[in-house]
Parts: sequence; structure tokens; C-alpha cells
Amino acid sequence: MKPYAFGVDIGGTTVKIGFFTSEGKFIEHWEIPTRKDDGGGKILPDIAKAIVKKLKEHDLTVDDLEGVGVGVPGPVVAGGIVNKCVNLGWDVVDVRTQLSDLLGGVPVEVANDANVAALGEQWNGGGKGHDNVVMVTLGTGVGGGIVINGKILPGVHGAAGEIGHMKVKEGETATCGCGKKGCLEQYGSATGVVRLAKIALANNPDADSALRKLDPLTAKDVFDYAKTGDELSLQIVDEVGKMLGEAIAHITCVLDPDVVVIGGGVSKAGQILLDAVLKHYTPAAFHASRHSDFKLAVLGNDAGMYGAVRMILNK
Amino acid sequence: MKPYAFGVDIGGTTVKIGFFTSEGKFIEHWEIPTRKDDGGGKILPDIAKAIVKKLKEHDLTVDDLEGVGVGVPGPVVAGGIVNKCVNLGWDVVDVRTQLSDLLGGVPVEVANDANVAALGEQWNGGGKGHDNVVMVTLGTGVGGGIVINGKILPGVHGAAGEIGHMKVKEGETATCGCGKKGCLEQYGSATGVVRLAKIALANNPDADSALRKLDPLTAKDVFDYAKTGDELSLQIVDEVGKMLGEAIAHITCVLDPDVVVIGGGVSKAGQILLDAVLKHYTPAAFHASRHSDFKLAVLGNDAGMYGAVRMILNK
Repeated sequence: MKPYAFGVDIGGTTVKIGFFTSEGKFIEHWEIPTRKDDGGGKILPDIAKAIVKKLKEHDLTVDDLEGVGVGVPGPVVAGGIVNKCVNLGWDVVDVRTQLSDLLGGVPVEVANDANVAALGEQWNGGGKGHDNVVMVTLGTGVGGGIVINGKILPGVHGAAGEIGHMKVKEGETATCGCGKKGCLEQYGSATGVVRLAKIALANNPDADSALRKLDPLTAKDVFDYAKTGDELSLQIVDEVGKMLGEAIAHITCVLDPDVVVIGGGVSKAGQILLDAVLKHYTPAAFHASRHSDFKLAVLGNDAGMYGAVRMILNK
Repeated sequence: MKPYAFGVDIGGTTVKIGFFTSEGKFIEHWEIPTRKDDGGGKILPDIAKAIVKKLKEHDLTVDDLEGVGVGVPGPVVAGGIVNKCVNLGWDVVDVRTQLSDLLGGVPVEVANDANVAALGEQWNGGGKGHDNVVMVTLGTGVGGGIVINGKILPGVHGAAGEIGHMKVKEGETATCGCGKKGCLEQYGSATGVVRLAKIALANNPDADSALRKLDPLTAKDVFDYAKTGDELSLQIVDEVGKMLGEAIAHITCVLDPDVVVIGGGVSKAGQILLDAVLKHYTPAAFHASRHSDFKLAVLGNDAGMYGAVRMILNK
């Protein structure tokens, strides 16, 4: 095995690049802007240049590289091909071949960013020490990633772990970004929590809630006020917990994983969120997996670069 | 690789034993009774004797065996240990070690019967040619099995694929065998279909349905009369399809498998069942996996012995 590797997490605004030894030791990381003009055609050349420059700083060349792992915010199908990534301006891009060619033929592995983050948490975060991990990411949307036997499960259409679009509610009138009604993402994401809060305020015009004075109102506010005992906030947190807990019970009925890791911005609410999820998870779960292990994610925004490099180091 | 292997499917009444070449060619199968007295202590010795006798008939010995795969109707934890199998009278039984010792040390692999059936269908049935298969078994209960990269996913508590206990309905008043309310098994199993039919007959006392005259009423009757256009039967089939279709949409959101195979006695209803499932699956599924491949199982009761031997031949 060659001595070094990079883990690259391509986001809509910046690209985070991590430099690692092949033993998995983190050396350093930095960010470059994501240039989306020209149909995103500058993104991979920018990454290649940044990597070559970093190698030069360390008196190294691409010959010292075991490979480069890449997480992208879109669906990845077999062979490392990204199939339409609107956030980057990409149509169909063969990331594996193109980036490898730009780096003198080094091996490149590519996966969806939510899956890569799940692998990062499995390897070095909330799922450390476990081979079978479900990661639930509560950010602007609800994403997820499934790690089985220490490897990402991509899915035949690149859509494994798309748990934000499990239909968890009958009779929902609002439409999810995906076009369906009643998706988990409509309740468990930061956007979803704010939406539930606005509905609760409108439905309870007489409720004396601290949330009513806030503009803008954020998901963090809802959890913060719930922690102080604000009644309406507590109700919203309970509803979020119900949707997440019951959806995770579906997932553990299917996979019976070693551990469920909850991450993303909303998960910073911490124990109050976990408690709300477990309150509804436990009665909905199959008895054998009723006491499944739940953990909060620990790597934050670094999960992507850890997971990306792990794809190279654990082929 | 040694030239022969056996696949054993232990049921509550009979044990089905299949004799195969190590290339996976089926030679013959036969059944022996499952003797449950003495806490099920005769079951493994009976199997060992039957195998040795069969080998003798072919002028072979255990030295010609690559191994024996076994499916059991209960949870199997790491190391081939069965953890309480009430159907067989077993408490905790180390099937791998005990059966191997009875057969002069040949390798033995053990898994839950629903998982083994899924592997059989993946290898040689409805999922043939695909590595990632979800099997949904609609029998007396609803079981399931998950095959990832050609291997059974057992789950950390031996409970992966327990999809019969996904909670698919709010407000159910009847209790599932597992103690929860609203499990898929309460609607999608043969028992569940009959239960729904009885509820529908009671709730529609004026409905002129052919089902009303039947005693006993079976799940097959409901599908048979639905095929002839009986209105109440069609409604029941639609409700069964809704519960199954929405639950399978959850599963494909999580796994995005190559194919979903539907088996078990209820699946003999055929296309009318698939149509009812797909009617509700398609709008509930995430768009990327909306057109997932659905197949009917083809191996029937042979799936277990095929899957059992496959565990040995694809280690």
C-alpha cells in the first residue's frame, strides 16, 4: 500500500479535502471554493490541482498516493459515475475516471455524500467499533447512509439510505421536495421542525409560547425552548421524535444494525432529541431490536472526508 | 473444494434435506420427521444419521462433504447458535458445533429459515442473477430476508428482515403475536387476510359477497373471489396491497435492492397480489426506486434447502 491518501467532500459551496496516511492517520485538511460555473467543469480540475499542490508542499507526488475518495451531493451509480447533481451544475459525470486521469491514474472511489458521511461515522465516529451502522442525518433535509460489513451500501439506483423519503404520515397535505406527501424529511429536518413549529403556533393561537416572538424561527430555537420547558416546543419535539422514532423502528426491523447514529445540524440538540426519538422508537420496534444502540454523530462536517478516504483504505 | 454438500431446512413438522454437488447441482431431496420430544434433542442426531445414510447409498463418506447448511425456524446469533426456538422445543442450541461434531467435523453454517429462503431465491429463484435481494414471505405470518452482496444479512440480534413487525397502521386495536399493534403481519399474512375479510364482512352486513358463505374462509378464497370480481374481496385485496406496498416502499428507501421477491403461500395468488402491491408501492416509493423490480418467488418450499446449501458453497 502506498503511504498517503486523500478524502474529498464536495459540497455546494466548498470542497473539503483531508490528507491522511494510509494507516488512516489524519494529517491536515483545508477547503477550496466549489466553482459551479461552466456546468461545474472546473470542480474536478480544481481538486486535482489542490491535491498536487499539497503533495508538493510535503515533497511528495501522485506516486505516493494509494488513492483519492470522493463524496458528492448526488446519486452515484456503479463505476463512480454521478448521475445529475444539480447542486454542482453536473449532468452525468464520470468522476472516477476524470479525477483519476487528472491525477496520473491514481485509484479514485466515489459515493454519495450521505453514504460517505455514514462510513466516516462508522469508521471513526459514533459508530466506531461496529460493522453495521445506520446513519440518520438531520440537516436541511433528512438523509441517511447504510454501512454493512464496513462498506457503504449504495443501492442499485444509488438510492440506499434515502430514509428522508419514507412515508411516515397518512393524510399530510403539504408536499415534500420529492413530490410525495408525508415524507420523514417534512418532520425531522431543520426545515421540517420549523414547519411544524409554524403549524403549531397557527393551530394554537392562544398558546403563550416563547417561539411566537422569534423571527426568524429556527429548529435550534424549538429545541432550546423545549429544554426550558416551553409547552408548545415540547409538543413539537415530541412530534419530531415520533416521526423519527417510528421510521427508525422500520429501519431496524429491516436491518437490525449494531448501532443507529444520528447526525446533522438538528442532532446538536443532543439528549432531548435522543430521548424524544427513543420514547417513540421503543414501543414501535420489534422486540429483538428494541434496545438497539443509539449514538449521536461526533465528526460533524468532517464525517465526509473521513468516509471518503476510508473508501480507499478499506477496499 | 470437496465434491458434495447438503442443505437442510428444519421445519416444525418435517426436516427437508437436499443433496447437492459443490457446483450447486441438485441431486435429490427427501424429508424426515421433526422429533420435538426430549426438548428437541433428537433433531440434530436424526439429521446426522439421515445424511450419513444418504452418503452410504452413494458410496460416499463425510470426507466427501464440503459442508452442511442449516435453516432453523428461530433467531440465530453469531457463531451459528440458535437462541430459543420454541417451535422445535429448543432453548439455546449450538447447532453449528453440535451438528459438526455429529458429522466428524464437517463445516456447518446456520441461519434463520426466512433468511435462508431469501438466499435460496436470490441464488436460484426469483432473484437469480442479482446480488441484493429483499424477500418478503407471506405465510402464516409475514417474514423476510435480506441478501446483500450475495450473503445473508443476519442482523446483530439475528433480527434483520423481520419486516412482518414493521408498524404500518396507526390506531389498530387488535394485537399482533409480537405484542405490538398495527404490524404488517396483521394484514399481509394468510391469517391477516382472513382477519381483514372477517372484519369487512362484519362491517358490511348488507354486502352480497361470496365470502360470506364460506366456512372456513381462507386467504386463497379472498384472492380467488377477487379474481371473479367480488367487490368485498377486491376491497380486502386492495387493503392488503396498501399495507404491503407501503411497507415495501419503506424497505426500498432503506436498501434500494436489485429486486424484491414475494413468496409464501399468499403469493400463490400471483399477478392480482403483485398488482395490488404495486398500485400502492409506486406512489409511496422514492422516485429513484419507484420502478424497482418485483418478482414472485419460484422455489416454494425448496427455497430453504437451496439457501441452506448456498451458505456452504458461497462462503
